[in-house]
Amino acid sequence: MSENPTNNLSIAVLGGGSWATALVKMFLENTEDVHWYMRSQESIDYLLEHGHNPKYLSGVQFDVNRLDLTADINRAVGQADIVVMAIPSAFLQKELDQLTSSMEDKWVFSAIKGIVPQSGLIVGEHLHKEYGLPLDQIGVITGPCHAEEVALERLSFLTIACTDQEKAAYLADQISSHYLKTKLSDDIVGTEYAAMLKNIYAIAAGMGHGLGYGDNYQSVLMSNAIREMKRFIALVHKMKRNINHTAYLGDLLVTGYSVFSRNRMFGNMIGKGYTVKSAMMEMNMVAEGYYAVESAFQLIKNKGKEPKKAFPIISSVYQVLYDHKNPKKVFKKLSDVLD
Amino acid sequence: MSENPTNNLSIAVLGGGSWATALVKMFLENTEDVHWYMRSQESIDYLLEHGHNPKYLSGVQFDVNRLDLTADINRAVGQADIVVMAIPSAFLQKELDQLTSSMEDKWVFSAIKGIVPQSGLIVGEHLHKEYGLPLDQIGVITGPCHAEEVALERLSFLTIACTDQEKAAYLADQISSHYLKTKLSDDIVGTEYAAMLKNIYAIAAGMGHGLGYGDNYQSVLMSNAIREMKRFIALVHKMKRNINHTAYLGDLLVTGYSVFSRNRMFGNMIGKGYTVKSAMMEMNMVAEGYYAVESAFQLIKNKGKEPKKAFPIISSVYQVLYDHKNPKKVFKKLSDVLD
Repeated sequence: MSENPTNNLSIAVLGGGSWATALVKMFLENTEDVHWYMRSQESIDYLLEHGHNPKYLSGVQFDVNRLDLTADINRAVGQADIVVMAIPSAFLQKELDQLTSSMEDKWVFSAIKGIVPQSGLIVGEHLHKEYGLPLDQIGVITGPCHAEEVALERLSFLTIACTDQEKAAYLADQISSHYLKTKLSDDIVGTEYAAMLKNIYAIAAGMGHGLGYGDNYQSVLMSNAIREMKRFIALVHKMKRNINHTAYLGDLLVTGYSVFSRNRMFGNMIGKGYTVKSAMMEMNMVAEGYYAVESAFQLIKNKGKEPKKAFPIISSVYQVLYDHKNPKKVFKKLSDVLD
Repeated sequence: MSENPTNNLSIAVLGGGSWATALVKMFLENTEDVHWYMRSQESIDYLLEHGHNPKYLSGVQFDVNRLDLTADINRAVGQADIVVMAIPSAFLQKELDQLTSSMEDKWVFSAIKGIVPQSGLIVGEHLHKEYGLPLDQIGVITGPCHAEEVALERLSFLTIACTDQEKAAYLADQISSHYLKTKLSDDIVGTEYAAMLKNIYAIAAGMGHGLGYGDNYQSVLMSNAIREMKRFIALVHKMKRNINHTAYLGDLLVTGYSVFSRNRMFGNMIGKGYTVKSAMMEMNMVAEGYYAVESAFQLIKNKGKEPKKAFPIISSVYQVLYDHKNPKKVFKKLSDVLD
């Protein structure tokens, strides 16, 4: 791979969901050579014939002549200088297990908002620890950003994080357009944890809503959540950061206040009385915060902290989802410690 | 007035709107002696007959035997140890001008979210500078809190600020109930400015919405707004405060994300192309942020700062409302400096 980032590097997007679809759209604004891996050959065939993803963001029309669509992950990764991962974290390991193509000289950006359940790590850490990928080749693409609004070309902002700021800037250039502004960050750990934690807080917001709490409560919950997020990220990775920047607070708000957030919806169903199992079946998809909260809870304990005291919102969501405590009672107790 | 706050002090609420109505409901949970001043004798007569305010929160039923309702502001103030002001800031001076009853030995709490247009001051400063009321007798009751949710007894949080923490605690005790939790603060200036500034940011959020920006943009705007609010409050009153506490960030969120906020609604209409005048006529009420933004803008200039650079959101709202600049163009420029 060229060391000169002014060259045109090729990019592979891995994933067939709405966020992967939005990312491909964004890269096609500036990148010549885009490879798109998705698991389903059926979806690829549909896309080649109709020019849009059959299942997600079907309003986005692609010029398929400019795309290398493939159901072979090794082909996509093998041909790319930059790999962008947009596979739900729950399924990431299964896809990585198929990988025989080496990633060692590639830049790998995670656009995944969650924890790899098999390792309990955020994606960047997972790639570094399990695959030996150097930290300065690892980056994060993070919100605040609904894929649906990218599809509609409504002005949105993404943060591109990488310890190597030149790589972050290169990726930002590829993704920027009249509807997409980018911010750079060197906080790969913090931004990725923020993206994971916000899903837990969105579940909490949904639970509160489902239990009948209103907007007043929601605003108090969110203002406590951002302070809890700050403490959590400081616990795992101390560095100077302004937690109110868009990559942290913005991302929390866009998810916590969105009625379209899967995580919020999942929490809402639990608050209304669904069991975890029935809520998952009803939604027919995985709420990433479900896995995230277990990892966060363990991580807090591993760091020698008492979750209930130090991180009451995370702890409350954990108690409801994993200890099957009554959400009404848990949230009543939580209310007493919100400030 | 007794110096012993364990005694039962009498409280007068001034104002006939929804927030005044909610406050009277809250005080009646614990306070024996409540006086309620409203301007309209017609509304008082209706309330005495039907037990609810004809115009606001009509679902709240009062035991009128426990209330001293009066259209005479001097009678209400004269009989009270504690005066709680809940009159829209635009009309406050007119009411104060009628006051012959002295306030010098009373505690005066402002539940008003705005600037007194005649002095350009927040209410606490106004009472201190124009009426010589000692600072330790002045307090603030602030959100995040929609009156409508108090009426429905949905759990809400209020912050009671006073430099004299015993007075704050006394008031908090009077107002607390199963649906109302209170937090204490000694930041009377900061909490009151936050309450005023959030209306400006709610107008900005509304303008963005009216112009067609989406949730992604809104979250970026809010995350910039809280940082701008922090800088603004530090400019007028430096002290150690966590801007992410409920009285600041919570209050911003409950207003900025509320479709019921008058200020957001006003901004929305402007964003959709209404003139300032026609939006005001259509709404048939005053959006407090309209006055607040002029005062904030002047204050920034008086402090020797350049509004456009240091406070771009406040400056943008000002340009649209007072310089009649095109909102689309102003917000396009604002987008370039959001981070």
